[in-house]
Amino acid sequence: MQTLHQFQQNFESFLNDKRFTGTPDELYEPVNYILQIGGKRLRPALVLAAHYLFDEHYTKSLSAALAIEVFHNFTLVHDDIMDAAPIRRGMATVHQKYGLSTGILAGDVMMILAYEYLLEVQTPKSLQVLKAFNRMAIQVCEGQQMDMVFETKGNLDIEDYLKMIEYKTAALVATSLEIGALLGGADDDEARLLYEFGRNLGIAFQLQDDILDAFGDPAKVGKKPGGDIAQNKKTYLYLKALELASPPKGEELRKYFTTGHNIEEAEKIETVLSIFRELKVAEAANQVKETYWQTALDALSKISSVGPKKTILEEFASALISRDF
Amino acid sequence: MQTLHQFQQNFESFLNDKRFTGTPDELYEPVNYILQIGGKRLRPALVLAAHYLFDEHYTKSLSAALAIEVFHNFTLVHDDIMDAAPIRRGMATVHQKYGLSTGILAGDVMMILAYEYLLEVQTPKSLQVLKAFNRMAIQVCEGQQMDMVFETKGNLDIEDYLKMIEYKTAALVATSLEIGALLGGADDDEARLLYEFGRNLGIAFQLQDDILDAFGDPAKVGKKPGGDIAQNKKTYLYLKALELASPPKGEELRKYFTTGHNIEEAEKIETVLSIFRELKVAEAANQVKETYWQTALDALSKISSVGPKKTILEEFASALISRDF
Repeated sequence: MQTLHQFQQNFESFLNDKRFTGTPDELYEPVNYILQIGGKRLRPALVLAAHYLFDEHYTKSLSAALAIEVFHNFTLVHDDIMDAAPIRRGMATVHQKYGLSTGILAGDVMMILAYEYLLEVQTPKSLQVLKAFNRMAIQVCEGQQMDMVFETKGNLDIEDYLKMIEYKTAALVATSLEIGALLGGADDDEARLLYEFGRNLGIAFQLQDDILDAFGDPAKVGKKPGGDIAQNKKTYLYLKALELASPPKGEELRKYFTTGHNIEEAEKIETVLSIFRELKVAEAANQVKETYWQTALDALSKISSVGPKKTILEEFASALISRDF
Repeated sequence: MQTLHQFQQNFESFLNDKRFTGTPDELYEPVNYILQIGGKRLRPALVLAAHYLFDEHYTKSLSAALAIEVFHNFTLVHDDIMDAAPIRRGMATVHQKYGLSTGILAGDVMMILAYEYLLEVQTPKSLQVLKAFNRMAIQVCEGQQMDMVFETKGNLDIEDYLKMIEYKTAALVATSLEIGALLGGADDDEARLLYEFGRNLGIAFQLQDDILDAFGDPAKVGKKPGGDIAQNKKTYLYLKALELASPPKGEELRKYFTTGHNIEEAEKIETVLSIFRELKVAEAANQVKETYWQTALDALSKISSVGPKKTILEEFASALISRDF
C-alpha cells in the first residue's frame, strides 16, 4: 500500500518534469523559480491520496494536484509581498528577486494557471470540483485579509482567530482532500467527510504550531522559542491569556504586544512566556487542539467504504501532530 | 431593436443593485469602491449584445457580463499598483486609498469572484466558456508583462507591439463577445467569428488611440497632444518611425525616448511630432488600423444567421472608431 510520503515523491517527480512556459519568459521564469525552490508538496500529495482511497488510478488527479500546488504557491508569492518578506525557504522571495510588479503579475498568472490545470481534468465532476476550488480560493483571500486586520485590531476574540486560521490554512488542506476524493469517485457525503477531516486537522495543526512556537523543544522545532511573541503575533495563546488574565495582567500583556515599550526582546519573551505558563494557556490550547484532532479522525472513521487504505490518512494525521512532517 | 448604449445601461442598473459582501468588510469595501467609480461598461455590454444576437433573453448572460467587468476591474487594480498610479477615473486608486496589501488582495479576490460569477451561469457550455475565459486571462497577464518588458527593451519590432496590444487590450473585448455568443447559443464558428471581430476591432482601437494621442484634436480627445511622447511610450508611431528613419535620425529619436537628455518637455514633444510628420507614421498607422477595422467588419459580415441585429455591432464599430465611445 502507498504511504503519503510516496505520493509526495510521485508528485515531486511529476513536477520536476514540468516546465511552465509561455511568452514573455519574464513572466514564467518566476513561476518556475518558486515552484522549484521546494516545499513539502503536502497538499498535492493529499489530492492524490484522497483519489487513491476511492480509485487506484490516482495519477488521473495529477493535474488537479498541480492546480492545488500552483495555487498554494500563488498565495505564498502574494503573501510575501504583503509581509515584505525577503526570504522564503532560504532563498530570495519572488518580488525580492524579480521586483514588485513581476511578483504581483507572476502570482496572478499562477492563479489563472491553477484554473487551467483544473480544467484539464477530464471528468463529469469538473464543475463541482471548480466550485469547491473557488469557494476555497475566496476563503483563503478572506483569511489573509482577516490576518492583516487582526494585526491592528484591539479586541479580537478566539472565535475570530479560529475562523481566520480555518480560512487561511485549513481550507486548502480540506479542499485538496475533497477534490481528490471527488475525482476518485467518492460520493458527496464521502467528499464532505474528507473535507471535514482536513479542515479539523488543519486547525489542530495551526494550534499546535502556536504552542510549539512558544514552548517547543528548540532542537526539534528548529528555531528558538518565542518568535510569535517577538513579532507581536496574536496567536491562540495570546488571546486565551487575555481572556483569562486579571485586568492589570491583561493590560501588561497588551503593552508587551505593541511597539510602545522599551523592553528588550529576550526579556519580553521571557516575561510573556511566564504569564502564559501562569495562566496555563498552552494546556488550554492543547485541549482545543486535541478536540479538533479527534473530530478529524471521527470524520475519517465514518468513511466506511474505503477499507484499510484509510490508514494512509490516519498515519498522516499522527505524523502531522507529532511533527514528523 | 436594442443599441449597445441600452446594453450598457442595462448592465449599469444590474450593477447598481449589486453589493459585493463577505467577511471581513475590509476586503470587500475596495471591490465595491472600484466597481462604483464608473467606467463605460463596454465589455459587459458586449457580452449582452453578443448573447442578444442569437437569443433575445440576454439577461441570462448578466452574470457572465459581471464576471467580465469584475475581471477587467481586477486588472485595473493590479495595473495601477504596477504603474504606481495615484488616480483612476478622477478618484484615488485602490492601493492609494486602502494600501498596497489590500490592493493586491482585493484584486486577487476580484479575479476569483469573476470565476464565481461564470460558474453561476447555468449552461451546458460552462466548461467551454471557462476555457475561453481562462485563455483570455492568461493573455492579459502576458500582455501586461510584455508591456513592462518593452519599457526597458532596446530593440522592439512592430510585430511584438501588435501582439502586446492584442493580448493586453483586444483579447478581453474579443472574449466578451465570444462568451456572450456561446451563452446565446451560437455555434463554434459563429463564436469564433465574433471573437475575430472583437480582436481586430480592439487592435484597431488601440492603434487609433496611439494616433490620437499624438495628432488628435485636443478639444475632442480631452487632453493635450503628446502624452505618450512625454512618457517615452513605445507606441506604433514610435516603432514605425524607428523603422523608417535614417540611422542618425533614428539615434536622435531614441535619445528623446530616454531620460538621458536635458530637453524640455514641450520642445521634445514638438520635435518628435515633427519627425513623426516627416516620416508620415500617422498615415502608416492609419492604414494598418483601417485594415484591422475592415477585417473586423468582414468577420462580422460572415455571421449570416443573425440578420439585422448585427447592425448593433456595426454601429458600435463605427462609433468606436469615430471616438463617440
